[in-house]
Amino acid sequence: MEWKNFDLLASYKKLQGLPVPDVKVLLAGKEGGERVKKLQAPMSNGFVYSYAAKQVDEDVLDSLQELADEAALTEKFAALYSGEVINTGEKRLVLHHLCRSQLGDAVIADGTDKRAFYVEQQKRIAAFANKVHEGQIVNEKGEKYTTVVQIGIGGSDLGPRALYIALENWARANGTLKMEAKFISNVDPDDASAVLASTDLAHAIFIVVSKSGTTLETLTNEAFVKNALKEAGLDPSRHMAAVTSETSPLAGNPEYLDSFYMDDYIGGRYSATSAVGGAVLSLAFGPEVFAQILDGAAAEDALAKNPDIRQNAALLDALIGVWERNFLGYGLTAILPYSQALARFPAHLQQADMESNGKSVNRFGEPVAYKTGPVIFGEPGTNGQHSFYQLLHQGTDVIPLQFVGFEKSQMGNDVDIQGTTSQQKLSANVAAQIVAFACGKDDENPNKYFAGGRPSSIIAGDQLTPASLGALLAHFENKIMFQGFVWNVNSFDQEGVQLGKVLAKKVLAGDTDGALAAYSDLLGIF
Amino acid sequence: MEWKNFDLLASYKKLQGLPVPDVKVLLAGKEGGERVKKLQAPMSNGFVYSYAAKQVDEDVLDSLQELADEAALTEKFAALYSGEVINTGEKRLVLHHLCRSQLGDAVIADGTDKRAFYVEQQKRIAAFANKVHEGQIVNEKGEKYTTVVQIGIGGSDLGPRALYIALENWARANGTLKMEAKFISNVDPDDASAVLASTDLAHAIFIVVSKSGTTLETLTNEAFVKNALKEAGLDPSRHMAAVTSETSPLAGNPEYLDSFYMDDYIGGRYSATSAVGGAVLSLAFGPEVFAQILDGAAAEDALAKNPDIRQNAALLDALIGVWERNFLGYGLTAILPYSQALARFPAHLQQADMESNGKSVNRFGEPVAYKTGPVIFGEPGTNGQHSFYQLLHQGTDVIPLQFVGFEKSQMGNDVDIQGTTSQQKLSANVAAQIVAFACGKDDENPNKYFAGGRPSSIIAGDQLTPASLGALLAHFENKIMFQGFVWNVNSFDQEGVQLGKVLAKKVLAGDTDGALAAYSDLLGIF
Repeated sequence: MEWKNFDLLASYKKLQGLPVPDVKVLLAGKEGGERVKKLQAPMSNGFVYSYAAKQVDEDVLDSLQELADEAALTEKFAALYSGEVINTGEKRLVLHHLCRSQLGDAVIADGTDKRAFYVEQQKRIAAFANKVHEGQIVNEKGEKYTTVVQIGIGGSDLGPRALYIALENWARANGTLKMEAKFISNVDPDDASAVLASTDLAHAIFIVVSKSGTTLETLTNEAFVKNALKEAGLDPSRHMAAVTSETSPLAGNPEYLDSFYMDDYIGGRYSATSAVGGAVLSLAFGPEVFAQILDGAAAEDALAKNPDIRQNAALLDALIGVWERNFLGYGLTAILPYSQALARFPAHLQQADMESNGKSVNRFGEPVAYKTGPVIFGEPGTNGQHSFYQLLHQGTDVIPLQFVGFEKSQMGNDVDIQGTTSQQKLSANVAAQIVAFACGKDDENPNKYFAGGRPSSIIAGDQLTPASLGALLAHFENKIMFQGFVWNVNSFDQEGVQLGKVLAKKVLAGDTDGALAAYSDLLGIF
Repeated sequence: MEWKNFDLLASYKKLQGLPVPDVKVLLAGKEGGERVKKLQAPMSNGFVYSYAAKQVDEDVLDSLQELADEAALTEKFAALYSGEVINTGEKRLVLHHLCRSQLGDAVIADGTDKRAFYVEQQKRIAAFANKVHEGQIVNEKGEKYTTVVQIGIGGSDLGPRALYIALENWARANGTLKMEAKFISNVDPDDASAVLASTDLAHAIFIVVSKSGTTLETLTNEAFVKNALKEAGLDPSRHMAAVTSETSPLAGNPEYLDSFYMDDYIGGRYSATSAVGGAVLSLAFGPEVFAQILDGAAAEDALAKNPDIRQNAALLDALIGVWERNFLGYGLTAILPYSQALARFPAHLQQADMESNGKSVNRFGEPVAYKTGPVIFGEPGTNGQHSFYQLLHQGTDVIPLQFVGFEKSQMGNDVDIQGTTSQQKLSANVAAQIVAFACGKDDENPNKYFAGGRPSSIIAGDQLTPASLGALLAHFENKIMFQGFVWNVNSFDQEGVQLGKVLAKKVLAGDTDGALAAYSDLLGIF
């Protein structure tokens, strides 16, 4: 497998020379409607990826296809899921796809079939969750647990939390909400205090999630919770479980009800479909629902193997993002789901994307001369429309937009006001926004003038369910992976988070001088 | 008052020619410590604004002072609070400061003393809230209300919601949480459904907040709620109140327990300290707590009158932001509060800033030739550290950072792990991050190399209380206002949100063709 810097590729030079299509023109009139019908890439689980409002034409798409071929992007994906050392910095395999499916041949590492290992953990978690739900694993008084609280941070928090919020109401409406889930992440003592104050401790299971078993925030919050349990006269070992690596100090510890395992081949931000998401989501919704998430992700992963970019939504989405980042000069992408259930999905993608591709060196440690990962931010529509959309429409920078929309609501509870339902109003707004951004509007009053030409895509689906949520997650994970391949960065390490940790330890040890000491004083730490 | 485009000012040309100070050098060694102690601007309520880690030196600061003087920024602020028509597009005064204090002479508009009008509404709200708390206003069965639910979107949602979340735990710890507050905003039917499903309707007051009384999302959600109340056998008029303008269809309507008023001179995103925030926050925490928020904001507003930029934190923060935006070329600002209570404060500032200054025309409707408002995003630390900080440290773009930190937690509940409390760990992390971003770290391994030179400021305080929260809010509101003055834009209209509304109405009326029709089909609206 050849790994070359992006700007050394022939397709890079070709893309540099291409004219930028005017989406305002392309989306106008009857031809605009035809374009919307045509520029769609298939996805699984009822989704389509629509890119008609992107600044692409057949020339750009052909050149992006050449880029995909020249950089061997789907071959690199195959190498990844076949167990090559893709995380070169930490010399690790990258195997989160195996939680969902065996995409290629069996991957044997450390003497183990890794797919079998992940499936075994899923089965152990499922058995544990079922016993909790059926009252075979109970508290000190023999009573059922009603609440599960995840203690984790970063990848052990954002992904599972986003997925829980995405399905909580669906589960309520479908009678599969087995336990309420809560999350403690921040080392801010008010975070744990607030969650504990609103939790029925006697009927709660706390899941401590840390791959290394050494994450400062998580161990601190675990101690916080253990104190609270003891103060409430409860036995922490009847209220805590762990998700960690087999070699961590948390593994197999008798202070837990049980321990479930992940390994070094699944990065935190890609761990939502591993035991990290599996434990809390299986307890909250039942193992069957978690299995549906995995099936949805697996279906989407399978589509990502296709070398034809027009048939591979994740790859196409990635390449259009590269076009925008490196040739059109856009520095951000806004994620705008028209679904309140996806309220925290942008925050998860913010981590997944920015921690993966926010790098300035290539996979060999050499500085790159082009832009890499963009900033990701977003809020659900229609809320965002009444907030930051003003800048998106009329600000001095163009910001590419990634919409997500659904035909049906999750709870099916709706009202008809002025002849339409709320769900229709919601969908009408996303359709309107795409056209407003792309086509703009002339006006004599320059305050009311919209330049248009502001590009967006939409992932349009039927309903947000466990399976479609899994597919949506996999789409973005794979998009980020493909972009990392193009930029030739290691998307699976995060060395940029280390320096802050080192300096924080120095502060806590009182080992400071100069600016660090002065800031410690300013914040009144001691 | 002279309003000139920024690039026509002498100080603009002067700033263009200035060398950019190297913050990595400036913060190093013993001198770095001295710089931190010196580069602080006073604020109220226990805060200081520390800008030692910004790319400024005395030359830059002197030139920014010249800019402030040349553009008459504090004079423009005085014109604003004295009742000049600052919102030129809509020909309106801009009076949100009067909710907090009479900063200059009395402002008479529409035959009314406006400060007296806002105070009267505060008194009416306080009386209403006290009666609700004391059981003089009760439900059909003569029982006390326990929950307040705000129905609003945009400025009627984000600010009040952010403030409620910021003080919920403080109020719990201080025994002043009178009623739990919830919020319905999105037209997504799942938003209202979920809130209603978890609310004890018989003991809930819903506050409908819409200045015009015509906001589609809010009226739809009001109808949603009324349906639910009726289905529960309840009388909606015993469970609903309104916050609106005196001329709106909601005003004085007998279908509400009461109506409270705002006016056209307070924009939605600046309405948190008006009746829009006042009703829900007074019901939730008691009118005394809301009054403390106002007092905190008033104290900070008073400091914003000072023409000396080194003594005016909001003005200085604004000018450094302009330096970064227009001369250093940075397109974003990240808001990073080290306080879980401020979880939604960045989302509120995202609206306040991006909707105010995300404009491409000046206040006379002429296109400007320079960048205006940046993109604002952020999440609380330490969570962000385990998420997008990788890109902030090692990504290919520099993103200015705005930290907020406190010496004390809100709830006072803490644990000592490895010799330090969680609060100390939290503060140590923010001190460490500032230095890590500014000073970087050399390393032979380029993966572990940190270039440094990444600028940040911190607003450091004692504790997040109602008064300090009010001060923090006012600081940012005033910062945004001053930046709008520099860029010569109208920060108080939002014409960019109109086109989407118009097109959404066309979709709902079935009046579509071309791309709009095709997107409507794609989303399965009909």
